[in-house]
Amino acid sequence: MRTTYREQLVALTAKIAELCGLVTVSMETATKALLRADLVLAERVIREHDQLVAACLAAEDAAFVLLVRQAPVAGDLRTVVTSIQNLFDVERMGVLAKHVAGVTQRRHPNHAVPADVSGYFAQMGRVAVQLGKATQQALLMRDTKTAAAIDDQDDVMDDLHAHLFKVLMDREWPHGVPAAIDVTMLGRFYERFADHAVEIGRRVNFQVLGVLDPDEGDTHG
Amino acid sequence: MRTTYREQLVALTAKIAELCGLVTVSMETATKALLRADLVLAERVIREHDQLVAACLAAEDAAFVLLVRQAPVAGDLRTVVTSIQNLFDVERMGVLAKHVAGVTQRRHPNHAVPADVSGYFAQMGRVAVQLGKATQQALLMRDTKTAAAIDDQDDVMDDLHAHLFKVLMDREWPHGVPAAIDVTMLGRFYERFADHAVEIGRRVNFQVLGVLDPDEGDTHG
Repeated sequence: MRTTYREQLVALTAKIAELCGLVTVSMETATKALLRADLVLAERVIREHDQLVAACLAAEDAAFVLLVRQAPVAGDLRTVVTSIQNLFDVERMGVLAKHVAGVTQRRHPNHAVPADVSGYFAQMGRVAVQLGKATQQALLMRDTKTAAAIDDQDDVMDDLHAHLFKVLMDREWPHGVPAAIDVTMLGRFYERFADHAVEIGRRVNFQVLGVLDPDEGDTHG
Repeated sequence: MRTTYREQLVALTAKIAELCGLVTVSMETATKALLRADLVLAERVIREHDQLVAACLAAEDAAFVLLVRQAPVAGDLRTVVTSIQNLFDVERMGVLAKHVAGVTQRRHPNHAVPADVSGYFAQMGRVAVQLGKATQQALLMRDTKTAAAIDDQDDVMDDLHAHLFKVLMDREWPHGVPAAIDVTMLGRFYERFADHAVEIGRRVNFQVLGVLDPDEGDTHG
């Protein structure tokens, strides 16, 4: 029995939300691995990443098949194209979780993060997980309130990141250059994870309200 | 007189190639600014970035209008959706050039990059410009040879980046933590610039050959 066009559209969005949930779990696990210098957890995140990439590519293919076979119009067309954009962000969120795990793996059995800044990463990890969950919710429910909450959480992430940078740039930083480089890169991975959630939240808002906020999206790298 | 659908498609691709040329000039200027600690050049890149973002958004809007009004099918549909994806990468390349300029601006009148590693950035800047030009060419000509050359140039960039990291991680690094952090971030900006060029090259290949290389695209953050 062939699924209907409408069912395929709903399934595509549900799939992206599911993948968003998976990358959120990846970031949660990667953060645990980082804070505990846990090689087993780190390697699990890295191993499972390939499946995630495959699932993202499969969903992108499904979206293109839907586009070409069903030739959706107007709002539906926008939904499919937006889904392809969202998939890109979800995949990047997964890559960033994998990068956190990669730093943990490279430094094992040492901790990549000195004890006196690990609190920042515990917090950034928590915010990342909240952002991932909010993004999943916004995707599933086309919920602009949740999408707005994503921006607030992103502000929290940016504040944490800015504070962390101050600590790093302090002349008294006692952990040497290699640790500073790891902390720099790790901080960026969390910040970028949040940025991708913000991108998805903006698109949900746009789909629901027809308004894209041009002030966002050009301030991060 | 209304332009035809075909003309609009060609104009969209030409626009993206033009924007790709502009971000390449931005990266070239940002690199000059970085190497000379030239505040005027750095501020020019930062100032001009807003226009670039506006042009990217306008092109994305034009692509969506084309999708909705003309309801392209099959290959044309894929071209439009791919254009929207390519626009994202071009915009990010512009953001990364702006970030390079931003570091230069923050450190002025000092050099952000110590003299003994500035050679890496001169080289990464040259490779970035070659990549940008090759990407523009690949977009305009739907040229798979140029698209393949992008991968080679990206390998050169990755090698430079890996070497730079070794220098940074060396216990003898004499420039302290703040300089190490700047160099870390700058290295990442150039590497990511190259990654976005690779993404566009892959899509050109896919459009021409119908083959997407699944080995690429999941290794960088």
